[in-house]
Amino acid sequence: MPLGERTGDEKSESRYCGVETEFSDDVPQLLSSNLHGGFDFVVAPLMDPTYRPSLMDDGSNGAGLLPFAGSDLVLSPSQWSGHVVGKISSWIDLDSEDEVLRTDSEITLKQEISWASHLSLQACLLPSPKGPSCANYARCVNEILQNLTSMQLWLTIPLEKSDSDAGGANPDHMIDSWYLWNSFRLLCEHHSQLSVALHVLPSLPSANSLGRWFGESVRAAIISSNSFLTNARGYPCLSKRHQNLMAAFFNHSIQIVISGEQLHSLPPGNLDTTANNSDNHNEGLHLHPLRSYLDYVAYLYQRMDPLPEQERFELGYRDYLQSPLQPLMDNLEAQTYETFEKDTVKYIQYQRAISKALLDRVSDEEASALTTVLMVVGAGRGPLVRAALQAAEETGRKLRVYAVEKNPNAIITLHSLVKLEGWEKEVIIISCDMRCWDAPEKADVLVSELLGSFGDNELSPECLDGAQRFLKPDGISIPSSYTSFIQPITASKLYNDVKSHKDLLHFETAYVVKLHRVARLASTQPVFTFAHPESSTKRKNDRYKKLEFEIPCDTGSAMVHGFAGYFDATLYKDVHLGIEPSTATSNMFSWFPIFFPLRTPVCVQPGIPLIVHLWRCCGSTKVWYEWCVSSPVSTPVQNPNGRSYWVGL
Amino acid sequence: MPLGERTGDEKSESRYCGVETEFSDDVPQLLSSNLHGGFDFVVAPLMDPTYRPSLMDDGSNGAGLLPFAGSDLVLSPSQWSGHVVGKISSWIDLDSEDEVLRTDSEITLKQEISWASHLSLQACLLPSPKGPSCANYARCVNEILQNLTSMQLWLTIPLEKSDSDAGGANPDHMIDSWYLWNSFRLLCEHHSQLSVALHVLPSLPSANSLGRWFGESVRAAIISSNSFLTNARGYPCLSKRHQNLMAAFFNHSIQIVISGEQLHSLPPGNLDTTANNSDNHNEGLHLHPLRSYLDYVAYLYQRMDPLPEQERFELGYRDYLQSPLQPLMDNLEAQTYETFEKDTVKYIQYQRAISKALLDRVSDEEASALTTVLMVVGAGRGPLVRAALQAAEETGRKLRVYAVEKNPNAIITLHSLVKLEGWEKEVIIISCDMRCWDAPEKADVLVSELLGSFGDNELSPECLDGAQRFLKPDGISIPSSYTSFIQPITASKLYNDVKSHKDLLHFETAYVVKLHRVARLASTQPVFTFAHPESSTKRKNDRYKKLEFEIPCDTGSAMVHGFAGYFDATLYKDVHLGIEPSTATSNMFSWFPIFFPLRTPVCVQPGIPLIVHLWRCCGSTKVWYEWCVSSPVSTPVQNPNGRSYWVGL
Repeated sequence: MPLGERTGDEKSESRYCGVETEFSDDVPQLLSSNLHGGFDFVVAPLMDPTYRPSLMDDGSNGAGLLPFAGSDLVLSPSQWSGHVVGKISSWIDLDSEDEVLRTDSEITLKQEISWASHLSLQACLLPSPKGPSCANYARCVNEILQNLTSMQLWLTIPLEKSDSDAGGANPDHMIDSWYLWNSFRLLCEHHSQLSVALHVLPSLPSANSLGRWFGESVRAAIISSNSFLTNARGYPCLSKRHQNLMAAFFNHSIQIVISGEQLHSLPPGNLDTTANNSDNHNEGLHLHPLRSYLDYVAYLYQRMDPLPEQERFELGYRDYLQSPLQPLMDNLEAQTYETFEKDTVKYIQYQRAISKALLDRVSDEEASALTTVLMVVGAGRGPLVRAALQAAEETGRKLRVYAVEKNPNAIITLHSLVKLEGWEKEVIIISCDMRCWDAPEKADVLVSELLGSFGDNELSPECLDGAQRFLKPDGISIPSSYTSFIQPITASKLYNDVKSHKDLLHFETAYVVKLHRVARLASTQPVFTFAHPESSTKRKNDRYKKLEFEIPCDTGSAMVHGFAGYFDATLYKDVHLGIEPSTATSNMFSWFPIFFPLRTPVCVQPGIPLIVHLWRCCGSTKVWYEWCVSSPVSTPVQNPNGRSYWVGL
Repeated sequence: MPLGERTGDEKSESRYCGVETEFSDDVPQLLSSNLHGGFDFVVAPLMDPTYRPSLMDDGSNGAGLLPFAGSDLVLSPSQWSGHVVGKISSWIDLDSEDEVLRTDSEITLKQEISWASHLSLQACLLPSPKGPSCANYARCVNEILQNLTSMQLWLTIPLEKSDSDAGGANPDHMIDSWYLWNSFRLLCEHHSQLSVALHVLPSLPSANSLGRWFGESVRAAIISSNSFLTNARGYPCLSKRHQNLMAAFFNHSIQIVISGEQLHSLPPGNLDTTANNSDNHNEGLHLHPLRSYLDYVAYLYQRMDPLPEQERFELGYRDYLQSPLQPLMDNLEAQTYETFEKDTVKYIQYQRAISKALLDRVSDEEASALTTVLMVVGAGRGPLVRAALQAAEETGRKLRVYAVEKNPNAIITLHSLVKLEGWEKEVIIISCDMRCWDAPEKADVLVSELLGSFGDNELSPECLDGAQRFLKPDGISIPSSYTSFIQPITASKLYNDVKSHKDLLHFETAYVVKLHRVARLASTQPVFTFAHPESSTKRKNDRYKKLEFEIPCDTGSAMVHGFAGYFDATLYKDVHLGIEPSTATSNMFSWFPIFFPLRTPVCVQPGIPLIVHLWRCCGSTKVWYEWCVSSPVSTPVQNPNGRSYWVGL
């Protein structure tokens, strides 16, 4: 039965807990005893572990029965697929020097996968490669993956990282089990059905080293009974660091599998509960030997905080790639306005910024005499007009508001809003693109909300350059500046989603995405800054930035699948707004980060800088980004001439 | 005028020698003086070197003339394209910290290329990057390359390799100018219009280091007058190593460009010759200041040996990718038989092997009594039948020959050959696939020529396994064994040809190719061996081999675009036949090497092994290879399940 309920995360696969079993030729009994023991699924060997193809009697000549556990009929199809993960024989070693063992291994692996596939199992657990060299194993798995319909293959990887000083036994870079995984999946070309089952050991690598895995395709975590500590009463528990790791597994939909022998006491009072739950046989009398581990894992699951409301709201967007909006070329739809207008935190910040600007602009003495001219450029359906009027009321300043909007559909709503609210005296509605509006007077304050996830990516600079014509020389722009930020991330899921399109175009597009299954490998760094009004007439909006990231030493090596992008904007003086993680405005939901994928993921190591180049390029009809890496290796400049991805002017 | 004539290599571009000039606004005069001076083309700046866009008067507002040398009308289109290579302003520095210089550089580069393109120049010479970082330069060139019709861009790269101990000034790996090129071309994604102009300096790197460049896309070599030595009479000459390098340039169609000032005497007696050749003005009176360098280069060119006949024959095949034959699935055409039968060296080797086998098989005493049964499997149009009969005659042994051939067209020729030669008594023609022939008796000797460039790649193992049924248990197979070999190569041209197909299929195909513009980065190593007859009934024809290559220390880093493959066959005892470079049979032309491309070229460095894996896989209807690299990085296993390239059974 599931580990428990968690508000907002009812569908997470991490509610289910499995158990690794020995080979048994009575699969129904094996399954029922474990399900009654409280587990949701078994990870069970499919074939007698003593089987070796080379030892089979040649006389059988292919007619002999393979030593599988039972036929497909012993369980129903839904039992097979719902409750059994196949465990591939752990003796196999496809990279052995011994050709007989290698051949036996290949034959057995193929037979077992074929059988598991026939049973429609959801996944098979592959044993960890035996040594640092895994090319023949990977080739065989790759061959299998080419024809596998939907089954997942989970490669067991021990969660260990030898310290560099303890290493030396293994040649090359193979001092870190992450390398084993990296090598394997590169050989299999990032196949989407190949993922990782992390084997959690009694001692854990550093937090940064662990963190890498949350950007990789990890489906399961196997924790042995010997990784548990013993509490005062003899029951199993986990170290604080293990507890945090388990919580992270739960948060990333990684299923726990308990393995090993019973090394601790059984839970005391649970006997009755189990008996009540059991609806056949006399299972209730015999507690599962690993029950106390399961109970502890369930306890960890249940004590997690419920998902915050915003996280729950955004659950469906996690790791889902969206193409960025083209608000300049396209007119937004009502639905989009509706969503963005609900982001109250954002408009509170704008109102604060406008209030401060009004107070700076007009002294208390002049408040009743002077009327400040405020222009909302890109007024949409009016949220900034409202914020401006509220700021005026709050500060006791007189205001004339021009609401400039190019979308004729929004203009209709604006007119009815003004009528409804009785703003006719203060608000003038202008149906025009700000870049070509012939303003009747100049503005004291220019207010806009033209920022995209990456700041300038929805062409705020170009729009505001156009609007600057009608801003007084000493006028104020809100926002007064904005900066984009990036950081390298491991994002196996996103990379595979981009790759699944099988074209260049999708690899040269930046996506808006709620990042979840990613590992952030270094702190963000600022990229492009734009300030308004721009005093230099020569300054163009082309930009070039070269950034150097250092991966923390204790991370070990990691794969960079691309870059997460953010922005931070200074609305006015100390009032800012942004999504850059270290300074993000809380409880704001208008922007997800942006993701710049790399066509070829780059493997980074501590000590060798990751050098990234980003360009913002401006043509006569479009603006686009190009990006590349030049260290540790050089990658092709992506999106040259904006051939794949651009924002129309 | 061309440097000279070389038999067999009349079309080589290296016959033409250029000269680097200063900026001149009188281009016709510049061109005529240099052409009359004996050069074939000029490498000339297109724009006044003092020009800086940022210093231009803003008042001109785009209407001002750019400081180009003349208009397009001062030369005819064929003069522009035939005799002028544009030299891009050498001051440009797109990776400067100084934004003004960077912007000026980008504008100037684009203006100059645009002008050169308008003039239909064949090429422009780009200055060498100023520092180890070249990403912005590369991005700009990449942008230009996207829209460049046919012009080549030659990036100047100094031919230097700092010793690793002398390095340290440059960060990262940038101790070797090859890195500069590698980084640049990776950023430009191996663009086929981007190539190298090597700048030859007074001191040269090691031979291995130089050798790398012959697999790269090098179009020109610039040699300064200060790289010349002075002979006893005051004239320029080159060091022995420079001479060898020049010869290698000539052999690889790399054009020489002479640059710099006159530092040596002018040639004495040549004045008359020049005067005779000049057909206008009074040019003959004034020798070109660099004439003595040109004369020396021409001397080096003229003293080269003529191309050997076989090289001349194979000239048209150089670096031309051919799909391997499928002789088992397809029937060869008469033309193909015709070509292969001309390879007399091959049949002499076969005759030697057969003679030795006959002598071993039948003692002199038994010679008149015993008739040896010899079967030629895959007899084609009969060359091996002839070799066998000649061996019998030579050794005085009696022979009964079965000529087994599956191609019904070849059978027709065989019958007429037997009739023509009067071989009816000795030769029995069998029109059948050897794999299913029901032989009337067993053979003493089985002779076949089923080998491909990679030995087993035309399915000799499978065919001979089928034929082994009718070989006596102590019978002899000729060949008795064969081994394939590979070595890593730089092969920029081949890689680009494969890439130009823009699909996976061509990257997962092995090609037969006369390798010429390649750099062999390490000695060959054996891959798969097959022996016949095969005693073990269990042994299958699947093979797996892991190979570790070490790049020589003095090579520096290099790019591996794929692997060159060869074979060596033991026909019988000490009689062998093969194309493995170190043991290749001379004057044989039946086989070009095979080339296994890598989808992603791998950069190798001395000290880190290059580990390669090759598999020979056998299915029920086809045989195929898979290959990958696992060190220094892992690459996807290519051709899984033979999805792209296979040989049909």
